[in-house]
Amino acid sequence: MEFDTIAAISTPMGEGAIAIVRLSGEEAVAIADQLFRSPSGKKLKEVETHTIHYGRIVDPKSEEIAEEVMVSLMRAPRTFTREDVVEINCHGGIVSVNRVLQLALNAGARLAEPGEFTKRAFLNGRIDLSQAEAVMDLIRAKTDRAMNVALGQMEGRLSKLIGTLRQEILEVVAHVEVNIDYPEYDDVEEMTHRILVEKATYIKGELEKLLQTAGQGKILREGLSTVIIGRPNVGKSSLLNSLVQENKAIVTDIPGTTRDVIEEYVNVRGVPLRLVDTAGIRETEDIVERIGVERSREVLKKADLILLVLNSADDFTEEDKQLFIATEGMDVIVIVNKTDLPRKIDMDEVRLIAKNHQIVTTSLLEEQGIDDLERAISDMFFKGQIEAGDMTYVSNSRHIALLNQAHQAIEEVLNGIDFGTPIDIIQIDLTRTWELLGEIIGDTVQESLINQLFSQFCLGK
Amino acid sequence: MEFDTIAAISTPMGEGAIAIVRLSGEEAVAIADQLFRSPSGKKLKEVETHTIHYGRIVDPKSEEIAEEVMVSLMRAPRTFTREDVVEINCHGGIVSVNRVLQLALNAGARLAEPGEFTKRAFLNGRIDLSQAEAVMDLIRAKTDRAMNVALGQMEGRLSKLIGTLRQEILEVVAHVEVNIDYPEYDDVEEMTHRILVEKATYIKGELEKLLQTAGQGKILREGLSTVIIGRPNVGKSSLLNSLVQENKAIVTDIPGTTRDVIEEYVNVRGVPLRLVDTAGIRETEDIVERIGVERSREVLKKADLILLVLNSADDFTEEDKQLFIATEGMDVIVIVNKTDLPRKIDMDEVRLIAKNHQIVTTSLLEEQGIDDLERAISDMFFKGQIEAGDMTYVSNSRHIALLNQAHQAIEEVLNGIDFGTPIDIIQIDLTRTWELLGEIIGDTVQESLINQLFSQFCLGK
Repeated sequence: MEFDTIAAISTPMGEGAIAIVRLSGEEAVAIADQLFRSPSGKKLKEVETHTIHYGRIVDPKSEEIAEEVMVSLMRAPRTFTREDVVEINCHGGIVSVNRVLQLALNAGARLAEPGEFTKRAFLNGRIDLSQAEAVMDLIRAKTDRAMNVALGQMEGRLSKLIGTLRQEILEVVAHVEVNIDYPEYDDVEEMTHRILVEKATYIKGELEKLLQTAGQGKILREGLSTVIIGRPNVGKSSLLNSLVQENKAIVTDIPGTTRDVIEEYVNVRGVPLRLVDTAGIRETEDIVERIGVERSREVLKKADLILLVLNSADDFTEEDKQLFIATEGMDVIVIVNKTDLPRKIDMDEVRLIAKNHQIVTTSLLEEQGIDDLERAISDMFFKGQIEAGDMTYVSNSRHIALLNQAHQAIEEVLNGIDFGTPIDIIQIDLTRTWELLGEIIGDTVQESLINQLFSQFCLGK
Repeated sequence: MEFDTIAAISTPMGEGAIAIVRLSGEEAVAIADQLFRSPSGKKLKEVETHTIHYGRIVDPKSEEIAEEVMVSLMRAPRTFTREDVVEINCHGGIVSVNRVLQLALNAGARLAEPGEFTKRAFLNGRIDLSQAEAVMDLIRAKTDRAMNVALGQMEGRLSKLIGTLRQEILEVVAHVEVNIDYPEYDDVEEMTHRILVEKATYIKGELEKLLQTAGQGKILREGLSTVIIGRPNVGKSSLLNSLVQENKAIVTDIPGTTRDVIEEYVNVRGVPLRLVDTAGIRETEDIVERIGVERSREVLKKADLILLVLNSADDFTEEDKQLFIATEGMDVIVIVNKTDLPRKIDMDEVRLIAKNHQIVTTSLLEEQGIDDLERAISDMFFKGQIEAGDMTYVSNSRHIALLNQAHQAIEEVLNGIDFGTPIDIIQIDLTRTWELLGEIIGDTVQESLINQLFSQFCLGK
């Protein structure tokens, strides 16, 4: 396929040592040559592929120097996009890299859309759709486990599994075709039914195995959305700080977005917690007042995990009770904090209202009980399971939805056989299963969906 | 010089398409070879310099795949540090790049200190100290003008100027030496005095020219620290938002730092404004209440520019007056906002208390007057001067301090001549001038200072 030449900044925005402007497309080398001045006068179009060159980027109109750079040149097809790729490594300032990008755009490149480099890798057949999606998951991975899931998927583990299943379905479809084409042979029909039941049951089983990994896979990928609640001065800030300090928080904050809800990720024994509204907690201990506010309720509603903090050195109050009511039916861990002070709270009362929620006692001040809390979080998530290193997780919501639909379609195949549905009707569901699985790897997927998918990528990838 | 092998993440932390782990030192290639697996089995130690290679990074203990990468290999001396350099380009996730760095450290690299790559470039003689400092200024540049100043300095413009001045001083010193060695020749003494006065006056003039650029240079480099103040509901948030929206804010927020004071940069007609405590403004309109607080006074005291907002549709109050008192003696622009509403404020009163501060009327709601405000800011900064494109600005506080000291030393030379001080005493001040200028380019600088300087760099540079 042939496309126009695109350009984007491929490193995160911010101050760093190196920033990269990436170009991809037929004109990538020619555009770079307009801007690049090597001390020896050599041109990029003359150099070998996969080589690196020192020089300056200039404004070709004035020959004014814009940046000192190293340029990497990679010719098609051994590149990320399978097109000619030029990467301009700048000193990592925001102004500097923007200036180089601007010159590339002036010289004829088009600003890449989010995910457009990876989209080209997909459209040019280097990777399939689930692999392309894994590229983004890899970037967004918050823990080692999440990264391993993404890496496995990018290396084609899920694609291979889906491919094998689709091959099996295709073989059954071929059998059914024979039956439809030669209905006069009775034994063929009988054999087809037998094979159909056998294969469909097998495929159903495989889909179920995959779907079993979905819950954990999704959380590994997206993080466990976690909200800390409690009355003022029970120790919410301290809890936040100790979780963050013990576990190296990864603050994700994209320049230009509003600061309304600031999220922080912490990695608790391999479980990525997405701590929501931490800014609110940091600035005011007064989340209870805000709990009446619609927005706070929204945040609570979306949470996967509630850390409800009580004050051991104080009575259990009506306000505490309201927090339990507000989080009814949710996954809650109750933290009874300040055990360093004389206990005043009635633990029986707490146990009664906490029902089957886990209760952890802590003295955050004296750094007591944090291990117990982390264990409780990890237990709740892994439910005692140990992660199998070579397991193929399904983590992507789109994939999970398609697997569910495929599972339903294959069930209808089995039901159809039970009810004696004509074989050519059954074949429709079978083909549908095949198509749904194909959508995961992008084999039978619509262009509009592809555009929508890649638009969720980050710029420059 | 020979050093151990260092490694660091050289791209900004955050989600991006590409992240780089950079290695530099004698063992860089050997360490990378431990981790790198090419599909063809080739080793990096066998490949040509300045080439790029596709492969995987593995944990050498388990051969478990850690990342899919492109590795750039550059052998000494044609590299940033003049040592062997290996750059491992990863998919730009935080977990992924940390994992690769960790493997490099396990394989024998040492985690680089901030600025250590650039420090090696300096210690290995590729660049001088002022050029090294310019590398960091380039990264931190907030506007095109600031970047041009840094780029000129990195290209050695300041170094050259300093070098020429030092050469002149050295020639005078040589003359003086002759005088000291052969005091019996009267005409030599007379000639020496004449040359001394002539040269010292010339050098003093050159230093003054350079120092004249310092004020602007420093602001271009560091930004004009700007605080918006005003009573609640006068439109501080609107002012902030319109400045930010019109001028593409660059939010700098380093993960892991406290969020107490959040700064945003906006580029107003080439003047970088560093808007201080914008978080405070965004979250509460109530900065007046906080103005009594010690911290707010501290912020005010450090500000280069105060934007004092008044409400045109309300009376001029005692609180407004207090703001003028609190900012006495500072650079203030008075903004009379809400001119869309019927005017209630007494403009004569405002003019009286504003003294010679500029007054701008705006209706931020109707987007009126923002141009006037921007012009006022730009006028205040450039004071009608037009930037000369090829001017050498001094922007670095360290350089400015050294230039001031050198200026003082050369003045003492001239005073000494006036007072008939013995020539060998004068020579001490002359040599001191030469040494002080040498410190700018790192020629006569102490190791402890060098360590301290580079520690202010960002990691991976």
